[in-house]
Amino acid sequence: MPEYKAPIRDVKFVMQELLACDNLYQRLGYEDASPDMVDAIISEAAKFTEQVIAPINQIGDQQGCTWKDGEVTTPDGFKEAYQQFVDGGWPTLAQNTDFGGQGLPHSLNTAINEFFSAANHSFAMYPGLSHGALATIEAHGSEVQKQTFMPKLVEGAWTGTMCLTEPHCGTDLGMLRTKAELNDDGSYSLTGTKIFISAGEHDLSDNIVHIVIARIPGSPEGSKGISLFIVPKFNVNEQGEILERNAVSCGSIEHKMGINANATCVINFDGAKGYLIGEINRGLNCMFTFMNAARLGVATEGVAAAEASFQGALAYAKDRLQMRSLTGVKNPQGPADPIIVHPDVRRMLLTQKSIAEGGRALIAYLAQLVDIGHASKDAEEIAKAESKLALLTPIAKAFLTEVGLECTGHGVQVFGGHGFIKEWGMEQLMRDTKISCIYEGTTGIQALDLLARKILGSKGEILKPFGSEVTKFCLENAEVDAMQEFIQPIMSFGGDWQKMTQNIGAKAMQNPDEIGAASVDYLMYSGYLTLAYFWAKMVKVSLDKLAQGDDDKAFYQAKIQTARFYFQRILPRAKGHASCVENGADSMMSLDAEDFSF
Amino acid sequence: MPEYKAPIRDVKFVMQELLACDNLYQRLGYEDASPDMVDAIISEAAKFTEQVIAPINQIGDQQGCTWKDGEVTTPDGFKEAYQQFVDGGWPTLAQNTDFGGQGLPHSLNTAINEFFSAANHSFAMYPGLSHGALATIEAHGSEVQKQTFMPKLVEGAWTGTMCLTEPHCGTDLGMLRTKAELNDDGSYSLTGTKIFISAGEHDLSDNIVHIVIARIPGSPEGSKGISLFIVPKFNVNEQGEILERNAVSCGSIEHKMGINANATCVINFDGAKGYLIGEINRGLNCMFTFMNAARLGVATEGVAAAEASFQGALAYAKDRLQMRSLTGVKNPQGPADPIIVHPDVRRMLLTQKSIAEGGRALIAYLAQLVDIGHASKDAEEIAKAESKLALLTPIAKAFLTEVGLECTGHGVQVFGGHGFIKEWGMEQLMRDTKISCIYEGTTGIQALDLLARKILGSKGEILKPFGSEVTKFCLENAEVDAMQEFIQPIMSFGGDWQKMTQNIGAKAMQNPDEIGAASVDYLMYSGYLTLAYFWAKMVKVSLDKLAQGDDDKAFYQAKIQTARFYFQRILPRAKGHASCVENGADSMMSLDAEDFSF
Repeated sequence: MPEYKAPIRDVKFVMQELLACDNLYQRLGYEDASPDMVDAIISEAAKFTEQVIAPINQIGDQQGCTWKDGEVTTPDGFKEAYQQFVDGGWPTLAQNTDFGGQGLPHSLNTAINEFFSAANHSFAMYPGLSHGALATIEAHGSEVQKQTFMPKLVEGAWTGTMCLTEPHCGTDLGMLRTKAELNDDGSYSLTGTKIFISAGEHDLSDNIVHIVIARIPGSPEGSKGISLFIVPKFNVNEQGEILERNAVSCGSIEHKMGINANATCVINFDGAKGYLIGEINRGLNCMFTFMNAARLGVATEGVAAAEASFQGALAYAKDRLQMRSLTGVKNPQGPADPIIVHPDVRRMLLTQKSIAEGGRALIAYLAQLVDIGHASKDAEEIAKAESKLALLTPIAKAFLTEVGLECTGHGVQVFGGHGFIKEWGMEQLMRDTKISCIYEGTTGIQALDLLARKILGSKGEILKPFGSEVTKFCLENAEVDAMQEFIQPIMSFGGDWQKMTQNIGAKAMQNPDEIGAASVDYLMYSGYLTLAYFWAKMVKVSLDKLAQGDDDKAFYQAKIQTARFYFQRILPRAKGHASCVENGADSMMSLDAEDFSF
Repeated sequence: MPEYKAPIRDVKFVMQELLACDNLYQRLGYEDASPDMVDAIISEAAKFTEQVIAPINQIGDQQGCTWKDGEVTTPDGFKEAYQQFVDGGWPTLAQNTDFGGQGLPHSLNTAINEFFSAANHSFAMYPGLSHGALATIEAHGSEVQKQTFMPKLVEGAWTGTMCLTEPHCGTDLGMLRTKAELNDDGSYSLTGTKIFISAGEHDLSDNIVHIVIARIPGSPEGSKGISLFIVPKFNVNEQGEILERNAVSCGSIEHKMGINANATCVINFDGAKGYLIGEINRGLNCMFTFMNAARLGVATEGVAAAEASFQGALAYAKDRLQMRSLTGVKNPQGPADPIIVHPDVRRMLLTQKSIAEGGRALIAYLAQLVDIGHASKDAEEIAKAESKLALLTPIAKAFLTEVGLECTGHGVQVFGGHGFIKEWGMEQLMRDTKISCIYEGTTGIQALDLLARKILGSKGEILKPFGSEVTKFCLENAEVDAMQEFIQPIMSFGGDWQKMTQNIGAKAMQNPDEIGAASVDYLMYSGYLTLAYFWAKMVKVSLDKLAQGDDDKAFYQAKIQTARFYFQRILPRAKGHASCVENGADSMMSLDAEDFSF
């Protein structure tokens, strides 16, 4: 099992040196988020995840959750760890002070979320789901609902879920069948079955607050007839005191490829009492509020997976002796050289490293945009931030989870046969991470959201704020010699990206299937290019630090070398994606469904 | 659990129409392999794998093998299925008639091996390992050894293993520590521990014949001091009768990501009696004899995985209703359209289909080369076949398992959340297939074998026979209009391949690390190009059949459409790999091992 060490140095580099979070926090009025406080929280989170959360990752996978008579038991150590998590005040970090939160920036919370996900994907999902429920109630709940549910959710004494999927509908929520009938007291009775409900039932908290989408009889068909409800496991009074059990039950839990320590539940609502959130038939719109945040959380899982797998593979590659370097013996005292001398092992390690660090920068940037959206007073700044967030969230979610999964595969591969053995922990990372490419909208759905809904849907308007930022950066550094090798490719790939976007738009007017046919390759291209921009920004900061004679020379030089690897050995993949996009939909659509096999 | 249907129609297309196996078999003297017999065997194998082997795939994964006091029990149904396998004469198919085999072509056996692997990867490994042991004894064993061990192995009453890996050495076999000391009677006593021994202990057969590499004291260090031994689980007399238990024991079995129904064993040799095969210190050379065959077997697993995953995903994509097509309602009677209408779902399905069918053609071609090597009387023909086999085997092994694994990921993705649930069987394919990228030499090792040992090691000589064949095909079809879209890309990518190869060779003279740095991207490029050639050949046959007015029009048209997809949407990936190769080793080698993390 690889030992997890939170990448504190790199997180501070990204937050403080690359993205100047201290200035931002001050400007946005996050007074408590002083540099010292930020440092202290990061260090404490590192310690907590390394010492408490990581050690129960493997046993969590081995034991999984168990279901008996509707009750779910989490693996050994999870209940105690969750209690420590609550006692340490971790759930309250970025929550509203009106309800017991500490009111710290979301971007700080996002940084430490990576530690939790990397240390233990399954564990991190329990508070992750609470966050979605909280965000929904905070944005759309009534004052009474907020007072009733938020304090306990903020504290972590209760946890939350998001109940969307049904057996026959995942992506296509308009097909849902769960119904909500109005009671005399203004509450609703919900009846139906939801599946794939992460953290839907467990033994970690006193109550579980389900956020459920359902249809009120008489509502329009499809997605315009969906309403949103709060359905607690135990009914509660307005003081938040637990009353009798509600008619919500866990029918079973799934046996899965990974994330075994997180209970994925079938939840049955048998006339369960629920409370409408927001307006009738506006449920899907309410969901969109927190969708970006949830997707950012999943994107973080991709980075976390790359980092955790990198750490394991790096340690092994330094330790494992096998064959001699082709350029001469490097470890004359040993019977062979450590495998990190071999170029192909380095290719895999540097792929992991460049994805983890580049992805971390992208995530941190997006999280700061969330802070701006929450706390800025400047309407134009907020609009720009929201535009960038809308554009980059599907890229981060789909791209970072796909390349994150790839990185976990490299981790297995660096270990050779040992990587396939459970004991070493590398294959668990691969199994756990595959779900990140699926939930909160698959890669295919993210790609359609990006290309169809956002870019073509806005006639390209959504590209402008982020596009201007990238252009400005390139122009500012166009004359800097040491930046040439990074700026030129961004301009070249960026120019092709614009043409590609216009071409798809033009073709889509003739044939809408051109959008779907291009979408995933387009998203992957966009992802490689976006990460190139963040790598170039990191190079700029590193060059400046080196020019200033900073003591941490090796760190900044490694950044520049890793950027070079990214530009030379990862970014070129975008060319293949561009050709695929260019070749269009015909070869995908012409085959009749009945002729796929004989 | 997806129902497995052996792709009989496509196997016959590849063997009979594309590769004219009937002519070949006649020419090589495989008299029993008449067209009727080939058809009958394929049909029987399809029935057997569909009805007996596939149904125990999922339970095999769930139960896994169990170890108790040195004994290994296979999952429910495996013992019975293996007995049916033996009773049906399947192990004997392509074996030497002198030892009870049927003497049928290896390529026929390879075709049905795909069915076994697709139906049940774990099950297929048991006879797969026997095949390696058999081939070694047949090629290098003494007459007595052959008479003693081969009949029972051929029959399947006994199974075999290959015992190479030790805890501290996998790829680098020169480091092995297992020792073999000469006894007075000419036998040896073997002492040491081997790990990752597939099928090392189980309850399927009466005896297990281990082929073991070990060092005889006083032998040279490294790979030049390795000898090869037969070490049976039970000692036997020359009549092949079982005597007392040998000092070989199974210390434990591994808990793995996948292939749970195949026992991966730690095997302890505690002064076990063994018999030298071939010459002292020539063990590694003996191993190379069957290495190509074993790697071809693993390559087949990649194709099998793509096919099995494709079948599951295709059935689901036709059945699952979700969203409407962007080009208008396709299923007006239903609440939504089947997801096969969506371009991105088709992208995933066609990726699987084009890899499975293209890979099948490559494997069948290689298997025919094995037949030629075994049965031709023409020395020049044999030399050419062996050259092509040496070149293409590492490509087939690494490329087809990497893209096969990718295809299993698409299978999960087509199922969405359901793909992550064990019940559906899609995630098992992904877990089972990952090992194929590792064992019998990882992707990285195959890439070095291809580029360093074979291409650069032969100064390009090895490329000539296959290169001439491809060039001839392109020239023959250069004027055929309908072939243009396929011939032109092969010539263009092929030309770039030659330049790329020369460039690497030139750079490697300055810096040997350029080889390792280029190797995997080079291999993947080679794989995409090689499959393009086989797709173009399949188009040619299909066009001819259509011109002849063949009744099976839809089949041939689907072939051409799938080829088009491959050329337009898969082959372009090679461009990214080419750029990575071109960018060289510097960005991979410059970072000091200590500076990979801070």
